[in-house]
Formats: sequence, structure tokens, C-alpha cells
Amino acid sequence: MTTPLIQMALDSLDFDTTLALAEQVAPHVDIFEIGTPCIKHNGVRIVQALRDRFPNHLILVDLKTMDAGEYEAAPFYAAGANICTVLGVAGSATIAGVVKATSIHSNAEVQVDLINVPDKIACAKESAALGVHIIGVHTGLDAQAAGQTPFTDLNTIADLGLNVKISVAGGIKPATARLVVDAGAEIVVVGAAIYSAESPAAAAREIRDTVSIAEV
Amino acid sequence: MTTPLIQMALDSLDFDTTLALAEQVAPHVDIFEIGTPCIKHNGVRIVQALRDRFPNHLILVDLKTMDAGEYEAAPFYAAGANICTVLGVAGSATIAGVVKATSIHSNAEVQVDLINVPDKIACAKESAALGVHIIGVHTGLDAQAAGQTPFTDLNTIADLGLNVKISVAGGIKPATARLVVDAGAEIVVVGAAIYSAESPAAAAREIRDTVSIAEV
Repeated sequence: MTTPLIQMALDSLDFDTTLALAEQVAPHVDIFEIGTPCIKHNGVRIVQALRDRFPNHLILVDLKTMDAGEYEAAPFYAAGANICTVLGVAGSATIAGVVKATSIHSNAEVQVDLINVPDKIACAKESAALGVHIIGVHTGLDAQAAGQTPFTDLNTIADLGLNVKISVAGGIKPATARLVVDAGAEIVVVGAAIYSAESPAAAAREIRDTVSIAEV
Repeated sequence: MTTPLIQMALDSLDFDTTLALAEQVAPHVDIFEIGTPCIKHNGVRIVQALRDRFPNHLILVDLKTMDAGEYEAAPFYAAGANICTVLGVAGSATIAGVVKATSIHSNAEVQVDLINVPDKIACAKESAALGVHIIGVHTGLDAQAAGQTPFTDLNTIADLGLNVKISVAGGIKPATARLVVDAGAEIVVVGAAIYSAESPAAAAREIRDTVSIAEV
């Protein structure tokens, strides 16, 4: 079994706060996720700033691209992003456009976000066929506030046995990180459970330990 | 009949090119639209720059918000945006969040983008009930490349007679601007037909003249 990766969702809007949080948790996470509100607020320069400071971390830009896939994503890969996200609801032409944008970069991947996709199984299969590398099972913040969780969808997608990695996001805490890994997630996304903790570094380390135990 | 507004889609990624194009077409357009790739690339500072230079124009930020509606949109209204967009496929909680973000600003409006919405009639009705001000009938760039146009959807939404403005985007040219106004659009979005023209200012003026003739 592959060692699960821990992805830290950087959801602040503030440039310096984002970099400071990344610095705190860096030893305990594998992927820095620049959240959608953060990228819209700060622009591509925050990708460049993280890339400069953290040359050995993976960087995911949560673009949630809905249209103009290649045009929108290409400059983010050029700036140092390893993974850009595209919405499953965007449809195949847009998803294919983002895949095309990765073609001139090594170590560049595309993640499809299944948020609000009506037929998640069909979308996951089509995305895999289009060359997408990661399927993101994602319960959004507004849906979490309504009590939803990503666990049912995770099982559904994992059961498909597609040749893709599965990333899971949506209110994951130390108590649930192990569950999602056991259910087939290779990337565990954590946000509030780290950045709202008294010590973000300690919380990130606890998630790492939990996931490592799950590997045994 | 209300005088139709002309919205110029600023689709470049480059900060200075965007401001220069806005300067060229300013006398002939009512709304500057900061395109989705442009806002993700440049961040909120491009809203502030346009607001500073063009205090009397309306500014639309094409956020295409998919989640965390209030959190994502609020700083853009604070920076001077008059209109932010939210995706119809985002669902009611996210749409309501963007509506909530307008509450502390005068002259702040929300536009729902019907791109890829399966049931556009239901979404338009629900959006109007949630307090959305503008329904955006939108054929995306990737769908335009596949030969689609916004005209059928425009007629469908206009026939509902909702108490909202209708904005139409998707490959509109001088030859079609009049058609969309006659069909009920109060906001006509033009992008490539202006910025790809030899003289963007002349092209913008031609659109303006076409729409004005349509009013007679």
C-alpha cells in the first residue's frame, strides 16, 4: 500500500498568514493546497511564493476550473503547481483542457473535484479515461454546514477500482483520517482540524501519526 | 424598455494588458467583467486597480463561486465589485451565501451563471427566490468551441418573466447583439468580438450602436 499523503488546505485569504501557516505545518504535510478563495484573492504570485519557499513540497491549486480548462490552468503549472483541480460538473472538454495543460510539465497532475456532480460514478470513469490522475471526493464547506460528509461517496468511488488516486476532503479530523485511508484514500485533505487547532503543527503531526498507524 | 448595458469581458491574464484594454473601450461599455482566468491569475488587486481608474463604471468579477459563497465573495465586494458571479450548479446554500455578502454594500448585486446547469428553469426560479439580481445565460468557451450558442436558453429564461435582469454571454458579435436584446437580455456580454478586433474601441462602439438601434 502506498503511504498516504497529507494535504493541508490553506484557506486563509491573507498572503502572509497563508505562508506563515505553511511554514508551521511543513514538516508534517506533503501537499500544500491553495484554497479556491485564497487563489482568487491572491492570484498566481502565491503559487510562486510557496514554490520558492518549499521546493520539496507538492503544491495543489484548487482552481475548481469550470471553463477554458487549458487557458486557465496552464499558467499555474508554469508557476510551479503540481496539481490543479477542475470541476467534474465542468464536463469533458474542460477536463481534457486541463489534462492538456499538464503535457509540457513533468510531475504535473490533474484532480477532478466531484463536488455537486449528480452521477459521480460516470464522472469518475470518464475523468480516468480522459487522463485525470486524481479523483477528489469532496464535501464542500456549505454542504458540511448542512451536515454532509464525504464517506459514502468515498466508498462508491473506491469500489470502482479505477487507475487513479483518490483524495478525500470535507471536515476530516484525526478521528476520521484513519477511516478514509482504510477506505481507500491515498490523499487525505485536512483544513480546519489543523488551522483552527491551538497548535497547527501538533495537529498536523497527530494526523500524520494517525495515518501512519493506519498503514500497519 | 431599459437601455441595455454592454459588458466587456476582460479575458487576458496580464494585469497591464487588462487595464490597457479597459482604457480603450471605456467610453463604449457600461460594465467591466474581470474574467475567471484573469481574477484567478491576478487576485483582488485587479479589482482595486479598475475601481481606482474607472470610478463610474460597473465592475463584475466572474468568480464562478462553487462553494463558501459568502467567504469567497465578500472581499471582492469590499474591493469595489458591483457584481460577483456564482455558479448555478453550486446549489442554494452557496448562492444564498453570495447574496448575504451583498447585504452590507449598496449597489452590490449577484449574478447566477447557468453554465452546465441541467435544469435551468428550476435554477433560475430558485435563484430569483434567493434574492439573486441577474441570471446569466452563458455558453462557455469550451462549449462554444463545440458549436453551442446561448440563444435557446435565453428564450427559455426570458419566457419565465422573473423579476431579474438577464445577461447573455457566449460568442456575441455585432450581428447577434441586437438579437439577444430583442429576445429580452438587459446585459449583453462581449469578449472576443471586441478584444480580437483590429480596433477594440471601434468594435465596442459598433456593439453599442447596434444595441441602441435595437431599442427603437
